[in-house]
Amino acid sequence: MKIIALVGSIRRSSYNRKLATFVQQRYVEQMDVTIPDLGALPFYDQDIELEAPADVQAFKQTIMDADGVIFVTPEYNHSIPGVLGNAIDWLSRVERPLTGKPVMILGATLGPLGTVRAQSHLRQILDSPGVAARVLPGDEFLLSTVQNKMNIAGDITDSKSVEWLDHCVADYLKFAHQLAASN
Amino acid sequence: MKIIALVGSIRRSSYNRKLATFVQQRYVEQMDVTIPDLGALPFYDQDIELEAPADVQAFKQTIMDADGVIFVTPEYNHSIPGVLGNAIDWLSRVERPLTGKPVMILGATLGPLGTVRAQSHLRQILDSPGVAARVLPGDEFLLSTVQNKMNIAGDITDSKSVEWLDHCVADYLKFAHQLAASN
Amino acid sequence: MKIIALVGSIRRSSYNRKLATFVQQRYVEQMDVTIPDLGALPFYDQDIELEAPADVQAFKQTIMDADGVIFVTPEYNHSIPGVLGNAIDWLSRVERPLTGKPVMILGATLGPLGTVRAQSHLRQILDSPGVAARVLPGDEFLLSTVQNKMNIAGDITDSKSVEWLDHCVADYLKFAHQLAASN
Amino acid sequence: MKIIALVGSIRRSSYNRKLATFVQQRYVEQMDVTIPDLGALPFYDQDIELEAPADVQAFKQTIMDADGVIFVTPEYNHSIPGVLGNAIDWLSRVERPLTGKPVMILGATLGPLGTVRAQSHLRQILDSPGVAARVLPGDEFLLSTVQNKMNIAGDITDSKSVEWLDHCVADYLKFAHQLAASN
Repeated sequence: MKIIALVGSIRRSSYNRKLATFVQQRYVEQMDVTIPDLGALPFYDQDIELEAPADVQAFKQTIMDADGVIFVTPEYNHSIPGVLGNAIDWLSRVERPLTGKPVMILGATLGPLGTVRAQSHLRQILDSPGVAARVLPGDEFLLSTVQNKMNIAGDITDSKSVEWLDHCVADYLKFAHQLAASN
Repeated sequence: MKIIALVGSIRRSSYNRKLATFVQQRYVEQMDVTIPDLGALPFYDQDIELEAPADVQAFKQTIMDADGVIFVTPEYNHSIPGVLGNAIDWLSRVERPLTGKPVMILGATLGPLGTVRAQSHLRQILDSPGVAARVLPGDEFLLSTVQNKMNIAGDITDSKSVEWLDHCVADYLKFAHQLAASN
Repeated sequence: MKIIALVGSIRRSSYNRKLATFVQQRYVEQMDVTIPDLGALPFYDQDIELEAPADVQAFKQTIMDADGVIFVTPEYNHSIPGVLGNAIDWLSRVERPLTGKPVMILGATLGPLGTVRAQSHLRQILDSPGVAARVLPGDEFLLSTVQNKMNIAGDITDSKSVEWLDHCVADYLKFAHQLAASN
Repeated sequence: MKIIALVGSIRRSSYNRKLATFVQQRYVEQMDVTIPDLGALPFYDQDIELEAPADVQAFKQTIMDADGVIFVTPEYNHSIPGVLGNAIDWLSRVERPLTGKPVMILGATLGPLGTVRAQSHLRQILDSPGVAARVLPGDEFLLSTVQNKMNIAGDITDSKSVEWLDHCVADYLKFAHQLAASN
């Protein structure tokens, strides 16, 4: 399956970026994961949406060609980062490549809550009729106190977290296949 | 009072931009309203937050010097636009100029709901401890079907909407003065 | 299909109760709709959940035997009524009859917003892992200013609203059949 | 100060009930805390709100006479329990005793998230114009894995949690006094 991972942080050594890379490597047999640079997009502007810049068009095409999308995001101010919201803004207009796509949400924080509120906002955004993605029901992957559960190389070293991630990814792949079969 | 209006849309003829300008002009006796260009900011990046680009520093200083902030935002996908979220991301880090500031929220839509869900997310963001702005309690200004209530010059022509806006602004000014007095 | 309609208001002449009855009658060919009395349930109490009162057990069995659930709810204080929350509290414990069930949400208000915020909370509740219902994606049925769109007999007289309801119900039935087929 | 603590669970040995009692005892010098039984209220019914049952009237009077309200609630299905929502439904109609009242929110869970989502819904409910309570800004008290932080007698034994509770209560009392002074 071709999967795009959208990462909500653009700093180089972001834990969430490392988490996306960990997923890319660990499940390479089941998923071919690409991680685009959301920081390279311009701000969404309705005045140019019909003739969007080449960067935006290429980005949208990438999502259109994918079998699914994995969001990997930190929490900023109880919500998602603006850079991630902006990417979704582009994806929700004209052609809408997220519509009907199977989606999974992951997040990591230094604190104890593991991006629970960011994920709550993100689910509402993805449920909106203009996006209408299909978010994996039930499972939530909240990686709290990530600094204690990931080594410098970016591997998750906490076995319970890895086990739960394995479980979520398996559920997600099953969900994506069911969706594809029912369409 | 020195007020900054943060507008969530960057397209030229945005109804929400016009709404901000309408507020700027109508209440010029009570408020000196400045409308910065949020589209000129880079994406928030933790790697550079301690030595932020000059644009960001100037923007943050503008908020720091203000007596209050008015958010005027469209709704994208049941939430706020990424460009507005990004501005708040910068404002929520290092010095946090929104903390304790009196805030009012306005929004306009073509449809019947007047940005109710965007305002709901925005209130949660502004309530978060990293932002901790003080949002005017009670009043909500939701300008639905704005295309029927605003003329080409950008004046609100619907008298009930103007009346309610007058009421909200009066409450906001009273709220801002009370906050200032209690600090 | 056997459908249970859960109504969030217990007053006799509730618009939302009438809306549930309208759905029951209009789509009688496609759905056999039952409307239980949520006001007859006791408050959820963990101390007695394993040996719940007969009323609660009968209510849970009704949901278990159903092919789907339609929520029809007013909005109280930007959320759902306590009486509806309480019914869900019972349904979310021990046997969990809502899990995997196809769900549609309807709501009516006197004002212009049509229960949009109640529906937003309700979707979050139904998405939670303890409930894990499957809410119809995309469509939203918000019956605003219901006093102008429904006659005394409880029929919706606004043709656009009826058309949209027909569309939502058709989508819901398709969604329910797809879910049933994929299980 | 006369404070009413509204507890969202009605089972006898509820951790949240114990938390309310702990607050009642620890801060007895600063607050006189009463804990009414929300399970004794009938379901809210608009048909009888103008001549509400004696129990409801007495409950509303208790809130009216209080200087502030502390909510102590578990999280059910990412939201607040129906029994607590129902109490707020009564308080939000006819006379509205929560309007303008200073409010603090506390919650305890067995799991790692400490009722963060219930508190998020509760804040939105309390912010709604029909309630318009004044929720303490900034501080959040989330008592996660309470079974490890509270002894059988109901005392919080985790010193960091007690320290943070002391801090939140001090902030709340200051906030309540400021509100009272500015009215």
